[in-house]
Amino acid sequence: MRIVSGMRPTGKLHLGHFIGVIKNWINLQDKYDTFYFVADWHALSTKYDEGLDLNELSVELVKEWIACGIDPEKTTLFRQSDIKEHAELYLVLNMITPVSWLERNPTYKDALQQIEYKDKNNAGFLTYPVLQTADIILYDANLVPIGEDQKPHLEIAREIVRRFHYLFKKEIFTEPKELLTEIPRLPGLDGRKMSKSFNNAIYLDDDENTIWAKVRQAKTDPARIKKTDPGHPEVCIVFDYHKAFNPDEIEEIEKECRAGNIGCVECKKRCAAKINELLTPIREKKASLKTSEILDIINEGNKKAKNIASKKMEKVNSIIF
Amino acid sequence: MRIVSGMRPTGKLHLGHFIGVIKNWINLQDKYDTFYFVADWHALSTKYDEGLDLNELSVELVKEWIACGIDPEKTTLFRQSDIKEHAELYLVLNMITPVSWLERNPTYKDALQQIEYKDKNNAGFLTYPVLQTADIILYDANLVPIGEDQKPHLEIAREIVRRFHYLFKKEIFTEPKELLTEIPRLPGLDGRKMSKSFNNAIYLDDDENTIWAKVRQAKTDPARIKKTDPGHPEVCIVFDYHKAFNPDEIEEIEKECRAGNIGCVECKKRCAAKINELLTPIREKKASLKTSEILDIINEGNKKAKNIASKKMEKVNSIIF
Ligand code: SF4
Ligand code: SF4
Repeated sequence: MRIVSGMRPTGKLHLGHFIGVIKNWINLQDKYDTFYFVADWHALSTKYDEGLDLNELSVELVKEWIACGIDPEKTTLFRQSDIKEHAELYLVLNMITPVSWLERNPTYKDALQQIEYKDKNNAGFLTYPVLQTADIILYDANLVPIGEDQKPHLEIAREIVRRFHYLFKKEIFTEPKELLTEIPRLPGLDGRKMSKSFNNAIYLDDDENTIWAKVRQAKTDPARIKKTDPGHPEVCIVFDYHKAFNPDEIEEIEKECRAGNIGCVECKKRCAAKINELLTPIREKKASLKTSEILDIINEGNKKAKNIASKKMEKVNSIIF
Repeated sequence: MRIVSGMRPTGKLHLGHFIGVIKNWINLQDKYDTFYFVADWHALSTKYDEGLDLNELSVELVKEWIACGIDPEKTTLFRQSDIKEHAELYLVLNMITPVSWLERNPTYKDALQQIEYKDKNNAGFLTYPVLQTADIILYDANLVPIGEDQKPHLEIAREIVRRFHYLFKKEIFTEPKELLTEIPRLPGLDGRKMSKSFNNAIYLDDDENTIWAKVRQAKTDPARIKKTDPGHPEVCIVFDYHKAFNPDEIEEIEKECRAGNIGCVECKKRCAAKINELLTPIREKKASLKTSEILDIINEGNKKAKNIASKKMEKVNSIIF
């Protein structure tokens, strides 16, 4: 069973990515034939005006993946824009994808409501799910690990596959199925979504002091003034972090907080320590990885991806032309 | 000065194509660095459901171009889908092309009103002008030979170029200008637009008998019943053909027709003879061309096109990534 999944190289990874995506990717690579790619063309579709250095960001991203435990021996790591077949299949699929399918895509409709994307209603943004479809079906992915919110995209992918098969009377693609993963939402330090733009993120390469400085400011239960005030962990961000990174002590901390037996500062210290315990080896591994090494790994992955993708495109072209 | 122009391989050429496009192409190849390409991806965007054999149609099209006088020594002839850079640049340009530019494109709006295209409102159809832009600017075309109706497309191309230069702060493309050509509209035998779907076309490979059989049925002045009735050449299709293919005799025929001195059958015979005179050498040349020869010519052209296009894409990628 093959799994294909991508990530956009728009900046360094934070704990939200780690919990939401990377941990899952690591689990999957032991059970499946995994392909993870740097979605640099996708990054362009909303970030074309930010002057990002996507070459550097792409290498950094793969470095962080590997530092986290993605294993190039188990997983094919490649860069989307190096495999031109993605663009070619995207063009072909656009020819048979009704605009109405794309317009009624909930992610698209939602995005147009947000200020960030209002001015970015470009053709590439509208056709984002078509490029995603190409990304997946080029490799005959059986499963795509997604969250609930991305289900409509995968539904479009399947519809496009069916339409292609119907129109050209040959079944050459695998209909991708979703591998629904319960994605734990890790809030940012202020309780909003963890994101660079909110300046509320803990990054995978933050050092011990930075982690502590950040956790110290995290939002806790506002009802607790004195250490002896009974706390409400369910409204506390730090408690969310304990749940994610300190599962062994979670019951104890909940009890102590509700009883007013633990101060928030101490609680945060224990939380920061746990996060640091997780991130230290990642930080160290990342520091040990040379850029040339990463480039070699991407090259190797590209070769394997290219080989599969070009064969698939040959088949596509023999049918459509 | 470089000129780039393409034609979709959707079926054999008729006199309307010859008068409207090919004659102009032949003139241009003596004065400019001309690139003419088989727009097979564009053909897919509306004909994906017709099961066309685009490989065969592409070869046939180039064969007919050369039979008409397009000279591979003077012109680079290539096939769009063989130059993957068109797809790659199309993808990149989609990222920066507002959907609103495409939606307000008059050709697009008109097409959606026609039954033929109503159900074909696909992403590829909407983004047709983006692919056209890629086709042109990949080669730094200075001029694009178009008719009045295609002006909006070229305007979109220029807007995309300007937007790219503005966003990425480097000027790497040439803004294409239109080479407006007075395109003589040659009506079909029934007075409607000459088109395969109306079954009113004279094809470049029609033989003498077929030409006569077709011209014989052409619509003439309905007021003429007897040979001595004065005619009105301005409402007669045959007279349009005389204008296009028999300019030397046009004054004489007009006079004789108005005076009722010539019968429509004789007039048509003279017209058919002139058309046959034009088409005989084309027919013969076409019959003499081997498919392998045409494939070689396309291969040569592809090499030259690929060389230019890949250099341009390298430049694009060094800027956007
Ligand atoms: S003690 Fe810990 S869990 Fe309770 S409110 Fe304070 S920081 Fe949050
Ligand atoms: S004589 Fe010729 S030009 Fe006049 S109406 Fe007949 S076909 Fe037409």
